[in-house]
Amino acid sequence: MSHPISRFPIPALAELPEDLRTRIEQVQAKAGFIPNVFLALAHRPDEFRAFFAYHDALMEKPGGLSKAEREMIVVTTSSANQCHYCVIAHGAILRVRAKNPHLADQVAVNYRKADITPRQRAMLDFALKVALQPYVIGDAEFETLKTHGFSQDDTWDIAAIAAFFAMSNRLANVSDMRPNDEFYALGRS
Amino acid sequence: MSHPISRFPIPALAELPEDLRTRIEQVQAKAGFIPNVFLALAHRPDEFRAFFAYHDALMEKPGGLSKAEREMIVVTTSSANQCHYCVIAHGAILRVRAKNPHLADQVAVNYRKADITPRQRAMLDFALKVALQPYVIGDAEFETLKTHGFSQDDTWDIAAIAAFFAMSNRLANVSDMRPNDEFYALGRS
Amino acid sequence: MSHPISRFPIPALAELPEDLRTRIEQVQAKAGFIPNVFLALAHRPDEFRAFFAYHDALMEKPGGLSKAEREMIVVTTSSANQCHYCVIAHGAILRVRAKNPHLADQVAVNYRKADITPRQRAMLDFALKVALQPYVIGDAEFETLKTHGFSQDDTWDIAAIAAFFAMSNRLANVSDMRPNDEFYALGRS
Amino acid sequence: MSHPISRFPIPALAELPEDLRTRIEQVQAKAGFIPNVFLALAHRPDEFRAFFAYHDALMEKPGGLSKAEREMIVVTTSSANQCHYCVIAHGAILRVRAKNPHLADQVAVNYRKADITPRQRAMLDFALKVALQPYVIGDAEFETLKTHGFSQDDTWDIAAIAAFFAMSNRLANVSDMRPNDEFYALGRS
Amino acid sequence: MSHPISRFPIPALAELPEDLRTRIEQVQAKAGFIPNVFLALAHRPDEFRAFFAYHDALMEKPGGLSKAEREMIVVTTSSANQCHYCVIAHGAILRVRAKNPHLADQVAVNYRKADITPRQRAMLDFALKVALQPYVIGDAEFETLKTHGFSQDDTWDIAAIAAFFAMSNRLANVSDMRPNDEFYALGRS
Amino acid sequence: MSHPISRFPIPALAELPEDLRTRIEQVQAKAGFIPNVFLALAHRPDEFRAFFAYHDALMEKPGGLSKAEREMIVVTTSSANQCHYCVIAHGAILRVRAKNPHLADQVAVNYRKADITPRQRAMLDFALKVALQPYVIGDAEFETLKTHGFSQDDTWDIAAIAAFFAMSNRLANVSDMRPNDEFYALGRS
Repeated sequence: MSHPISRFPIPALAELPEDLRTRIEQVQAKAGFIPNVFLALAHRPDEFRAFFAYHDALMEKPGGLSKAEREMIVVTTSSANQCHYCVIAHGAILRVRAKNPHLADQVAVNYRKADITPRQRAMLDFALKVALQPYVIGDAEFETLKTHGFSQDDTWDIAAIAAFFAMSNRLANVSDMRPNDEFYALGRS
Repeated sequence: MSHPISRFPIPALAELPEDLRTRIEQVQAKAGFIPNVFLALAHRPDEFRAFFAYHDALMEKPGGLSKAEREMIVVTTSSANQCHYCVIAHGAILRVRAKNPHLADQVAVNYRKADITPRQRAMLDFALKVALQPYVIGDAEFETLKTHGFSQDDTWDIAAIAAFFAMSNRLANVSDMRPNDEFYALGRS
Repeated sequence: MSHPISRFPIPALAELPEDLRTRIEQVQAKAGFIPNVFLALAHRPDEFRAFFAYHDALMEKPGGLSKAEREMIVVTTSSANQCHYCVIAHGAILRVRAKNPHLADQVAVNYRKADITPRQRAMLDFALKVALQPYVIGDAEFETLKTHGFSQDDTWDIAAIAAFFAMSNRLANVSDMRPNDEFYALGRS
Repeated sequence: MSHPISRFPIPALAELPEDLRTRIEQVQAKAGFIPNVFLALAHRPDEFRAFFAYHDALMEKPGGLSKAEREMIVVTTSSANQCHYCVIAHGAILRVRAKNPHLADQVAVNYRKADITPRQRAMLDFALKVALQPYVIGDAEFETLKTHGFSQDDTWDIAAIAAFFAMSNRLANVSDMRPNDEFYALGRS
Repeated sequence: MSHPISRFPIPALAELPEDLRTRIEQVQAKAGFIPNVFLALAHRPDEFRAFFAYHDALMEKPGGLSKAEREMIVVTTSSANQCHYCVIAHGAILRVRAKNPHLADQVAVNYRKADITPRQRAMLDFALKVALQPYVIGDAEFETLKTHGFSQDDTWDIAAIAAFFAMSNRLANVSDMRPNDEFYALGRS
Repeated sequence: MSHPISRFPIPALAELPEDLRTRIEQVQAKAGFIPNVFLALAHRPDEFRAFFAYHDALMEKPGGLSKAEREMIVVTTSSANQCHYCVIAHGAILRVRAKNPHLADQVAVNYRKADITPRQRAMLDFALKVALQPYVIGDAEFETLKTHGFSQDDTWDIAAIAAFFAMSNRLANVSDMRPNDEFYALGRS
């Protein structure tokens, strides 16, 4: 019953363009393993480069949202999209970044019942609307975020993270991308 | 940001009817802690008795579905109902009963991508339909289950478990019932 | 074109455990006929006992909701779940308990257009949310009910009745449970 | 808690154009009362004329569908649109035309569980798709109807009746149109 | 890949009843071509007569809504119903009547982002609710329209236009009715 | 009633990083105007670079899908997401690339009724599922595409384009991004 990493081809590391191999070796050195998303996207080097450049621009740069909050957006919206890879892998990252072993499972099941602040609740309400009903968003949603102290740049960040993972969740769902076993236990104790 | 166990009153153990207290002490002796659902329902002794009698009649008796399979039904349908308590608590029980640290997270996110057999996939397709669109169920669904070797009794069991947790998920969601911290880590290693 | 009572076996009364037979004879004596739900659940005596114990704990005990109001919750949510048995059978009970030949049909079609009080409208708004979107229920819904004078115990009752029939509707839909012909005309004049 | 017939004005019969008054007097003579839809549309004489001309062209003319079958389409789709007036009033007409006191309640709750023929089931499957998802209808739906013996003219009739009541249900829902009390009991014995 | 005008028969003009032929010749003289809806409905003369009588009673008479506003209602709701014929044909009419080459495309895609007044936004919010959720409409919706200056007659007009095209969209979707090529370019410069 | 290009800041061209300005000047030289998406994303240079690198990797490279077919995917899924900018702008590009003035409007309203081949219909069925229900995609969808002659690489391309515009549609909807007036008329004659 075990699945391959993806429905699509996984190139050998040795055959990858230099810059992809370097990037993959760096993440492996840091994490101790190669997260499967790096292997699953490697058959399309240009898309790989754009994907991770975009990812880093949203998830790694300084900004008004903490890194744990960004991962909360990822886990909440990826769960709404029923994305196996993203909920498991980013659930692990959220546990690590929030130093909280329960939060990822809570927002994956129902963020409305999670141990979060009202400000974070407003952030996730907005992110979920971006994920599921982006066409209704208007002045009212911007006003609510402002009330909770989010700047215009923060608002863009929430929307852009939810939008980027709207893409990512679809790629992972179509390719049947599998999370590494390591992710399940990471950050739980 | 920490929540109480429930929006509704939690009676002191000492004030409970004898049979409820006995039941609670038994589960505590076995599990090492009192699962919060026992406390959250105790303010209504008659409903408590019926709830656990029903639960045990479906989940503990012998039958064609393994105990792990029954928990797979619970976790899959409870996730569709976004039930915080049931996904976390029964996710733990599923890990223990299946002796598998990954399966619960997999079926909670998207059972279609989980490491399960085609027979289990058919079981969960049916259970989810019971949870979300019970009114469309007809001959076609019964035929499919028969093809996968489920007996008439198994079919009732799948339906009855999904139906019982349709109730349970609603009680837990309305009362904001909280899982014990112990459940998050149980069965993960 | 006539259907059997259920897709599942109907045991002969003579073969039933003593307590089930007694319960069935009592209801028959009172109603003049045996409502089919008693026969359709009898093949599972433990579940039968728990089901009716639970039912009675919610529907027969004293409380802040009138018995007619409880049946209004049943008919409204059972109609949303398109449950043939429950709408027809409890529609009849509602007509009898409310001494009103129109109310059951009204709430079955669209409770928002029914001849009910604003308090009952709030009760049914909440019950329908329990039936269809239990995961979104939070402080706002509790506040609204309080505004209309519902106590905490009343709120539990509304939720528990909607939750119990979420289960019941699913059992009846899966088993193709048929209402007795007697129910259609009961309480209409 | 009693409602007026409509949110919109009800002109006095004496003030109506001659042809409307004649039509209304004819229906009153036949039915023994004036169905409220005639009063609720009378404030717009041109729309009244077009509405009933359209209605009669679909519901009264000869054709491959029996008059009872046409009313089954009306009740099934009107229930999906939660139209108080149409389900109650046309439920009565269906009982009378089918000489069956149960059928209207059955198709109103869940036509998939009703005592109907497979051909009627296919007719109502199609009608419901016209009511709820008209944009997906294509070759497959036409083929299915042909298999059940429906002619091209019958197919148009099913679609046109479902479409006409899509309009009618919306007018009745917006205007809060009330069925006459007489309809509830008609044809029940 | 070219489609016929309709799945249903198109009678020859010469075989049509006098009044239908006259009506069709009038519209041809005015528009320069025969809009296909006139041909697609002609196989049912009584329905044809009622359809266009109804249409004209709503779309051509004087009233509080401008003719361009009526067409905005048509295009917005027809787009929600994914009606090929109605969006293309009435999009053209809207461009002509509003003397605006962009408005039709805007409301067809997402009226919430269109260059319209707050009053028109409220009108379209209401029309879309009539199209998609007529059963929830109640006092709140009427109050909102009143706030924006709509009279009771205007409210009826909005609802009746949305309701009439709920019918029309269904007929066009089922019959695969094709817009004339002329409509695509009309009013664009 | 005219809107700004975006809810977010539009930097002056002179203040942009060299590579962004060059890219923008190139597209302006080619198109005769600056499509607003280039301006609306410019306040975030790293995201701008990743966005257009990704876009070009999917939309400009050689492959099994024609450029017109790629734009058909964009318009169909962007319409399902009600994305004002993307439907108008990519509708124009589709008209130009397909040398067909009608196709864009057809797939925007209802691709099931458009003048396309069965192979293109299968492509758009899949793309829409990626857009709206990515979590259900499995073996059946892959088999259908194979039957229509799509290679594994084509399948990835369809999915990746639908996924990329899932992101793009969300950014445009949140930022209220406006298409240039030029797009409305492009490719219509």
